[in-house]
Amino acid sequence: MSLKGELLSRFERFKKNMANLEKDWEVVAIFGKVNTFYFTNTMQNGVLIIKRTGENFFFVRKSYERAKIESPLDFIYPIKSFKDIFDTTDLKGESIHIEKDVVPYGFFERFNKNFGFKRVGSADLAIAKTRAVKSDYEIGLMKKSGEIHEYILQKFVPTILREGITEAELGAEILREIIIKGGQGLTRMGTFNAELYLGNICFADSGNYYNSFDGPAGIFGVSPAVPLLGNHRKKLLKDSVIMLDIGCGYEGYHTDKTTVYAFGKIPQEAYDFHKRCVEIQNMVAERLSPGEIPSKIYEDIISRVDRDFDINFMGFGPNKVKFLGHGIGLVIDEYPVIAKGFDDPLEENMVMAIEPKKGIENVGMVGIENTFLVTAKGGMSITGSDYDIINV
Amino acid sequence: MSLKGELLSRFERFKKNMANLEKDWEVVAIFGKVNTFYFTNTMQNGVLIIKRTGENFFFVRKSYERAKIESPLDFIYPIKSFKDIFDTTDLKGESIHIEKDVVPYGFFERFNKNFGFKRVGSADLAIAKTRAVKSDYEIGLMKKSGEIHEYILQKFVPTILREGITEAELGAEILREIIIKGGQGLTRMGTFNAELYLGNICFADSGNYYNSFDGPAGIFGVSPAVPLLGNHRKKLLKDSVIMLDIGCGYEGYHTDKTTVYAFGKIPQEAYDFHKRCVEIQNMVAERLSPGEIPSKIYEDIISRVDRDFDINFMGFGPNKVKFLGHGIGLVIDEYPVIAKGFDDPLEENMVMAIEPKKGIENVGMVGIENTFLVTAKGGMSITGSDYDIINV
Repeated sequence: MSLKGELLSRFERFKKNMANLEKDWEVVAIFGKVNTFYFTNTMQNGVLIIKRTGENFFFVRKSYERAKIESPLDFIYPIKSFKDIFDTTDLKGESIHIEKDVVPYGFFERFNKNFGFKRVGSADLAIAKTRAVKSDYEIGLMKKSGEIHEYILQKFVPTILREGITEAELGAEILREIIIKGGQGLTRMGTFNAELYLGNICFADSGNYYNSFDGPAGIFGVSPAVPLLGNHRKKLLKDSVIMLDIGCGYEGYHTDKTTVYAFGKIPQEAYDFHKRCVEIQNMVAERLSPGEIPSKIYEDIISRVDRDFDINFMGFGPNKVKFLGHGIGLVIDEYPVIAKGFDDPLEENMVMAIEPKKGIENVGMVGIENTFLVTAKGGMSITGSDYDIINV
Repeated sequence: MSLKGELLSRFERFKKNMANLEKDWEVVAIFGKVNTFYFTNTMQNGVLIIKRTGENFFFVRKSYERAKIESPLDFIYPIKSFKDIFDTTDLKGESIHIEKDVVPYGFFERFNKNFGFKRVGSADLAIAKTRAVKSDYEIGLMKKSGEIHEYILQKFVPTILREGITEAELGAEILREIIIKGGQGLTRMGTFNAELYLGNICFADSGNYYNSFDGPAGIFGVSPAVPLLGNHRKKLLKDSVIMLDIGCGYEGYHTDKTTVYAFGKIPQEAYDFHKRCVEIQNMVAERLSPGEIPSKIYEDIISRVDRDFDINFMGFGPNKVKFLGHGIGLVIDEYPVIAKGFDDPLEENMVMAIEPKKGIENVGMVGIENTFLVTAKGGMSITGSDYDIINV
């Protein structure tokens, strides 16, 4: 399919999802750069207007010239300010739907001064459901990310680990190598206030340290102002667990993967718990096929985790989270989540990161994460299939 | 001053700014992670309630434990959801002020379901004005960032440049070295949709390429999905201009700096235009003292740019922007801006990045940027004082 055909089919699927979720919708305005890219293939600055009936408009403030080069759509128009839209199209009506979980309150207020929409609905879920199902083109990009990701964690990192290297230094080496190998370096999140810089670089106890982020892996990070990446003073000591939970990206699309290393001798318990996490990952992965219900998968698998193992499972102490995996794509935290409340069936070509992990007091965190394509035969890992602790 | 004293003085200055700007304010709720950090010294997830009269409350969802470790404030309380706040405090009234340019529309709606505030005001400008004036403690951190920054662009980069290296590879080497030297790597922006990943790594014409970002430097970047950093296929050729406009950060605080290199022989025009940009930087810097008006500085300096030089000055073609510099701190795009509309006087210990640049067709972009402290004697650069093109 041409890129233009691919983009137009995204509009169509989105409109179907809107019709299912928001019966009375009239017009959607998309402002966020990630969604703008998804529908137009350019991240230039403006607003995309999608109407229930009638023409669509992509108004670009900066750079119109670049948007015209990057996007094959034929409804791209230059504007200087949102006021110009008013003159160009008959953008009016009772209600508008926006990315309510993306657009700042004041930004929308300023936009709406020109138009006076009375009801403001959310297009977030319809967009999320559309983005969740990937095209062959998108899957191709994600597989490229997965290849880089597998190389970095399985092959590259073991060559870099040495006694005395700091978490931050290891993070720096990984970031450099991801970019050298063609990755984008950048890792994007969708949720408000969520932030990820490469990921969690954790030596020993850091994997159990308090984290504001809604994930099982703990993190110490650089400092209170940058609770991300890894610490500049935390050195790798002999006989310790290393847990790397990092994001990788290629041409906008991400994969998520966690690998655990034994740097010297680590407790047998760490190997045992890791093995159990891999079993749980594989049990979830087996069920990643069309028609399976995420909330049902969660309930079934969690009910098979015995009470002892559940202690510090999916996060040490207060870090514990109530999910086993999450969608991934243009951002790392996509729809759906393997958790309660996600009752719509999985569809072919969704992509899910599955991440069972367990903290061990005074030792660190073990466990696994890989990114899986939802197929009729169950989840297919696109980030490699070596799941063991790597002994260094 | 103790960290606690420093934080409490930030609250006081903020309340004064609120009183000046929003006469009738009752209560402010701060949700954004950067502002939360500014007032509390922790970036953990929750909401900070600042009242005109009466107690303040910092409610933390995740991680309360970490917030207690990192913040010296004595009004920190754990919550599971925003509903819990309702039980703990008498949070009610007609109006609430929030970070309107930060908080997503839907996020605030969900919060307000519990409280029913009728009028929603903006605390953005009062926060921006408070953050604009840095304490000695903050200036110390920014100077550390400036030292790393100067080392990277003046000393490190010339050792790395070689024919055939790609923009992305150079970016990767710089990112790695910033982190190795104690920097945070991460560069934060405040404006909705703005994004910066290290900065603009531009060989030759890339510095003139279309940019969605509101800055004079162009960028090609990785791809349409990642118009950031530099390109994986664009190689450094002999006899070309290199422009690096990058951010650096230390413990949350940023500096901004641009250096231009001649890799081999470049046109004399490039040196001449660069020299003029340095003169303009220095003219602006001389006026960075308390009492000077940013809009007046802008008008005065721009009026002295002759018509020929003004072509492609502050951005090639449609990239042209209408400012000469910007505040900087916890984000790269802080208050105030050296531009029309900024009519309040500069204050001692504001920190400003000044960045006159000029595009040259088929050659690239030349010019300069450094980060200056506002002092009684004019701007004092904290990112070094070598402004010439570096010949490699």
